[in-house]
Amino acid sequence: MRMVEEGVTFPQGFLAAGVEAHIKKKDVDLAVVYSEDPCQAAGVFTTNKVQASCVSYTRRAVEQGPVRALVVNSGNANACTGPQGVEDTIQMARLVAGELGIEPHEVLVASTGVIGVNLPMDRIAGGIKKACSQLSKDGGESASAAIMTTDTVPKQAGAELTIGDCAVRIGAMAKGSGMIHPNMATMLAFITTDAAITRECLQQALRDATAISFNMISVDGDTSTNDMAVIMANGRAGNEIIASPASESYSLFKSALDQVCIALAKMIARDGEGATRLIEVEVAGAKDDGEARTVARSIVSSNLFKAAVYGEDANWGRIICATGYSGADINPDTVDIWLGRQQVARGGGGVPFDEDLAREDLAQEVVKVRLHLNQGTGRATAWGCDLTYDYVRINASYRS
Amino acid sequence: MRMVEEGVTFPQGFLAAGVEAHIKKKDVDLAVVYSEDPCQAAGVFTTNKVQASCVSYTRRAVEQGPVRALVVNSGNANACTGPQGVEDTIQMARLVAGELGIEPHEVLVASTGVIGVNLPMDRIAGGIKKACSQLSKDGGESASAAIMTTDTVPKQAGAELTIGDCAVRIGAMAKGSGMIHPNMATMLAFITTDAAITRECLQQALRDATAISFNMISVDGDTSTNDMAVIMANGRAGNEIIASPASESYSLFKSALDQVCIALAKMIARDGEGATRLIEVEVAGAKDDGEARTVARSIVSSNLFKAAVYGEDANWGRIICATGYSGADINPDTVDIWLGRQQVARGGGGVPFDEDLAREDLAQEVVKVRLHLNQGTGRATAWGCDLTYDYVRINASYRS
Repeated sequence: MRMVEEGVTFPQGFLAAGVEAHIKKKDVDLAVVYSEDPCQAAGVFTTNKVQASCVSYTRRAVEQGPVRALVVNSGNANACTGPQGVEDTIQMARLVAGELGIEPHEVLVASTGVIGVNLPMDRIAGGIKKACSQLSKDGGESASAAIMTTDTVPKQAGAELTIGDCAVRIGAMAKGSGMIHPNMATMLAFITTDAAITRECLQQALRDATAISFNMISVDGDTSTNDMAVIMANGRAGNEIIASPASESYSLFKSALDQVCIALAKMIARDGEGATRLIEVEVAGAKDDGEARTVARSIVSSNLFKAAVYGEDANWGRIICATGYSGADINPDTVDIWLGRQQVARGGGGVPFDEDLAREDLAQEVVKVRLHLNQGTGRATAWGCDLTYDYVRINASYRS
Repeated sequence: MRMVEEGVTFPQGFLAAGVEAHIKKKDVDLAVVYSEDPCQAAGVFTTNKVQASCVSYTRRAVEQGPVRALVVNSGNANACTGPQGVEDTIQMARLVAGELGIEPHEVLVASTGVIGVNLPMDRIAGGIKKACSQLSKDGGESASAAIMTTDTVPKQAGAELTIGDCAVRIGAMAKGSGMIHPNMATMLAFITTDAAITRECLQQALRDATAISFNMISVDGDTSTNDMAVIMANGRAGNEIIASPASESYSLFKSALDQVCIALAKMIARDGEGATRLIEVEVAGAKDDGEARTVARSIVSSNLFKAAVYGEDANWGRIICATGYSGADINPDTVDIWLGRQQVARGGGGVPFDEDLAREDLAQEVVKVRLHLNQGTGRATAWGCDLTYDYVRINASYRS
């Protein structure tokens, strides 16, 4: 298996385009992804009780399958927009289906942006027409740019693996930035693959990959109304179909999917609104993996610790504090903590460390925190970013 | 009942002092409160699994009762400080007891400040000696200043009520600022009263008052290792002892205590690190009060909404979003939202509103948000503050 810097058009049989539909003030803001063959599809969706209409629409389309295309707009989330919003989601699918000669229920729909404003459907329609006419093998990059909101860089990741004699590819794009918090697919991620795989295996692989990637990142603790991660598999690779989670081919596919999702998750965390650093928190020695996840997510979600990282302040007290209020059943007296290259706490108490070295480690592009809880064998890794002036600036005037 | 701007020495028989013990770089940082008569005491304490030694020490002292004095230092939390930390807490009680001619178990101890550094006991000892020699009826104000960390103003509140023929007084001081989140007494609050009341009634009154005051505020979602609210009642008012929660005297006392705690809670929220505004979120029409509390706290805890308030941006989408991920069983389609003087959403969707008027309301000292969930009769109010550049600045370099 090798990782590649490629996106949704990397697997065979997928085309894409990202165009300017003028929903945002500038830049590309509408993407269409199309598969030449019907796809099995799977998805994970926001746990927010308030959900944009595209969320329930796409959930249903994924369940019914097969699907052929995906349309995503940025600049407007089409959430809290009433019956008109529901109608607009369906209309987006109809417009794409009309252009591509497929059925509306074969089109997945996603939106991201401001809440509570109806979509400008004339511009959406123009954008869909344009995107469908520009679909190409090179369109993955423009599609990944078109789904950005306050993201500063497009996010793509891919992998190539061998199953039997067949080369199988996975490609993906994601957007994140604000309103990112571990609670089920807390952003948009669209994954394509030419693997032949059953819907059941695809759903399980995506759900499990999400648990250790997208659900392990936090930017600000806010879970959005529009989050989703979906995967489309068109079978073009010609491998013997992956039909059981117990099979070797499933393991190979799952492990590549894990890596693609983790790569995207880290890009999302690193590109959190205003962020200057990626924080990686590794927890080991927990009672079980679930407890390790709880602790790791609590630390990357702590405003106080995130601000300390921004200030390059080796304030490990905030790490143990977030461990304590995480809800996990930890023993404060057995917590060991490392910050960068040095141990800073042992058995819940501080140990002498070199402050200059710590400041150096905190100034790195990736700030590493490691905890050992000395309670068992559970482990997990979570990713986040520092809290900066720019997070406040960006979010103080998001609508303007 | 009337509210007064008085502190812990307002009730009869209480003396206090706040002095410079040089634990912090400057300013007063050690307070002693003393009652001329033995007190019933009650307390609520942090739910963080990592607790400073003063928390377990004071919890035990309160349970054993009666108590006579309280010592608090700022600048150092004496948390995660190992066996030496435990010994230092006990030593603080011993030193106060020695100066005042009382028993160590009659002294409550609290600390606040940086985590993981042992207390400078020589300076603590000097400070205790000085404070005990300066105890006075006018010392409430200096005591309230001595418990501050990044607070910008001291916080005091009091009330006077009549029970039978007796004037009964309540006085209190609190500190808040960072690491404030609704999860049991998330700050330090010290309340005195000259009411005659049983320990059981005092504990119940404090627990219930905390639920609607200190537990309904959030500054940053971080629950500290040192939080506590304690109350001492010395009976000097001479009222017939309050011995049943069903009595009228209990109701009178409880309602005054509620108001004192709410006043302090609002001061703490308003003085959140870097805050420029107090946010008040009132939720009505919930299935029950618990659900209303969950929703109200979720909104005041949302980084995105807090940043929007700072930017005077009427982004009600973030209010309904935080309602949706709160965990409460809400119906998105029946949510009505008011921002300041105007309704901004009805039935989960936006309604036209005057943006200029909204900006005016968001620029007020107190920003009011009102939700009606249209599901039942549950209601609650929560308080928070905006998220500003200064929150980041303060917390990026707390230890420096």
